[in-house]
Amino acid sequence: MINPSAIIGEYVSIGENVVIEENVKIGDHVTIGHHVIIKKDTNIGNYAQIGELTVLGKSASSNKKMNRKPEKDLEPLIIGDHVIVGCNSVIYRGVKLETGIFIGDLASIREKVTVGEDSIIGRNAMVETNTKIGKRVTIQTGSYITADMVIEDEVFIGPCCSTSNDKYMGEGNFKHQGPIIRRGAKIGNNATLLPAVTIGENAIVGAGSVITKDVPANNTIVGNPGRIIK
Amino acid sequence: MINPSAIIGEYVSIGENVVIEENVKIGDHVTIGHHVIIKKDTNIGNYAQIGELTVLGKSASSNKKMNRKPEKDLEPLIIGDHVIVGCNSVIYRGVKLETGIFIGDLASIREKVTVGEDSIIGRNAMVETNTKIGKRVTIQTGSYITADMVIEDEVFIGPCCSTSNDKYMGEGNFKHQGPIIRRGAKIGNNATLLPAVTIGENAIVGAGSVITKDVPANNTIVGNPGRIIK
Amino acid sequence: MINPSAIIGEYVSIGENVVIEENVKIGDHVTIGHHVIIKKDTNIGNYAQIGELTVLGKSASSNKKMNRKPEKDLEPLIIGDHVIVGCNSVIYRGVKLETGIFIGDLASIREKVTVGEDSIIGRNAMVETNTKIGKRVTIQTGSYITADMVIEDEVFIGPCCSTSNDKYMGEGNFKHQGPIIRRGAKIGNNATLLPAVTIGENAIVGAGSVITKDVPANNTIVGNPGRIIK
Repeated sequence: MINPSAIIGEYVSIGENVVIEENVKIGDHVTIGHHVIIKKDTNIGNYAQIGELTVLGKSASSNKKMNRKPEKDLEPLIIGDHVIVGCNSVIYRGVKLETGIFIGDLASIREKVTVGEDSIIGRNAMVETNTKIGKRVTIQTGSYITADMVIEDEVFIGPCCSTSNDKYMGEGNFKHQGPIIRRGAKIGNNATLLPAVTIGENAIVGAGSVITKDVPANNTIVGNPGRIIK
Repeated sequence: MINPSAIIGEYVSIGENVVIEENVKIGDHVTIGHHVIIKKDTNIGNYAQIGELTVLGKSASSNKKMNRKPEKDLEPLIIGDHVIVGCNSVIYRGVKLETGIFIGDLASIREKVTVGEDSIIGRNAMVETNTKIGKRVTIQTGSYITADMVIEDEVFIGPCCSTSNDKYMGEGNFKHQGPIIRRGAKIGNNATLLPAVTIGENAIVGAGSVITKDVPANNTIVGNPGRIIK
Repeated sequence: MINPSAIIGEYVSIGENVVIEENVKIGDHVTIGHHVIIKKDTNIGNYAQIGELTVLGKSASSNKKMNRKPEKDLEPLIIGDHVIVGCNSVIYRGVKLETGIFIGDLASIREKVTVGEDSIIGRNAMVETNTKIGKRVTIQTGSYITADMVIEDEVFIGPCCSTSNDKYMGEGNFKHQGPIIRRGAKIGNNATLLPAVTIGENAIVGAGSVITKDVPANNTIVGNPGRIIK
């Protein structure tokens, strides 16, 4: 079902059973897989490819136990030119994806997230709200990017990394702040980053490490708790 | 395709291409997203919201290597009033979700699981069979809740936590028993809990810790292996 | 929509809104769930069961930041007799699944992967490209199997394990090589395996361990970094 208000460019391929809601705009040379759902107001650039069974432009919701209520009046989802989105993924309204980004299958990105050009968000990676991801960043399969986090350009995050943003785990007055990962830093697979730690420029975090304190630029840190080795 | 045996309340919104199998019952003021599949006998309460591309009421299956064969004659899936379920999720027959629960996108809950009122099961969280989850519990994104586990009221489980229930990993005679997490305990992100450990009331497990023994109430434990620090 | 070129056996059950592209071959007594998408050339054996909302035979793609470009001329996806695939899963073209395999919901397997008979790939498990998985292997829920990895027969991998294949995380000349897990080895939940480590026959890796070096056959290793305890 394609809402008649949709504006669809030239040379667009649309699969079977695709749902396009009102005020969607789709550029030229776009491919939309079977059973894709494009929620209202979503804007898709030229040459984008959207995988099967994916939801674009979902609105956030919450129950009464959640402190952070979804904002109203979020911007539409904006997907840049040449972006590739995998199958069975869920991308929220209020996300902005720059040119050339790759998003894997079974991934999800919450509202108020921006991702810079040519970055990679791996399969099954989860990105929470209010996080800024730079250009040419790699986030590998299954990594978890918490809310209120900053990831600068050219950062590499291996598979299955985990981050958090709430020192008191749901209690107390800690202002939520995720890790800050400076330009060019590399995080090994299954590393754990605690709230508000800063990983300096070009620093390296070993696989399986647990990072409880800031890591200075150009240092390498490994272990639980993490200790600097050079 | 809506089976004619379905009983559907008033003010129900049903998306495109929804499949509703036989003997489904849906309350009033319910919203069902596009491409949702509701398997036979499922019972959905008033004001529930079901996200796109989700499967409700799946029956379990197994191959010949699996020791635990699916039970026959499971109860239908029961979804309480005001429950919110995300997109691309899979909830099995034999699950009971109380009022006000929130279940994120890309999550899955196996058969014979009960979840108490107002609890949160985060995006991409996986819950195995035969586990009891209390009221006002938070299970954050990507956490893994093994089978045969007990999670009491007001427990907080951070993102990407992992649990297990089989000491001998597929061999030997260990009775499968997951961790037991007592009321109000908090588990930091990417923590690992071994089979049958008990985390006491209001205990705190640090991020990235590996918990091999019971943790007394009100204690804090960190490290690999976990050591009590206060 | 079923492409007229499809060859479909006897006693096949096909759900609602299933898309079957050109040159697909389906054996006898197969069950295909609602909203399944079967991409071109896929070959499904007798008595297979495919869960709802699953994609079979996806072609790989990449963006310009990725070093590994998808190969052309991959073989079709081949699914053996009695294979069970869960819901909301994504299996690529170029995969070969032998008889009796079980694949859970929300799982994904990339191209150029073979899986031996009766093995289990758990819910939400992710398998990267160019990896060989033996017979009667168990890979539990949420585990991450990197590219260029070898898993021999009867290996057991607990939930949420993580592996990697690139020592220099995107830089340098390290030839990508994932872990090699020898016959009968067992890996505890949330363990981390570094690139190119070998886990010997019947070795045991403790839950939450970080394995940085080879583990000899029949040894047990725990901790971060892993130390042999017997």
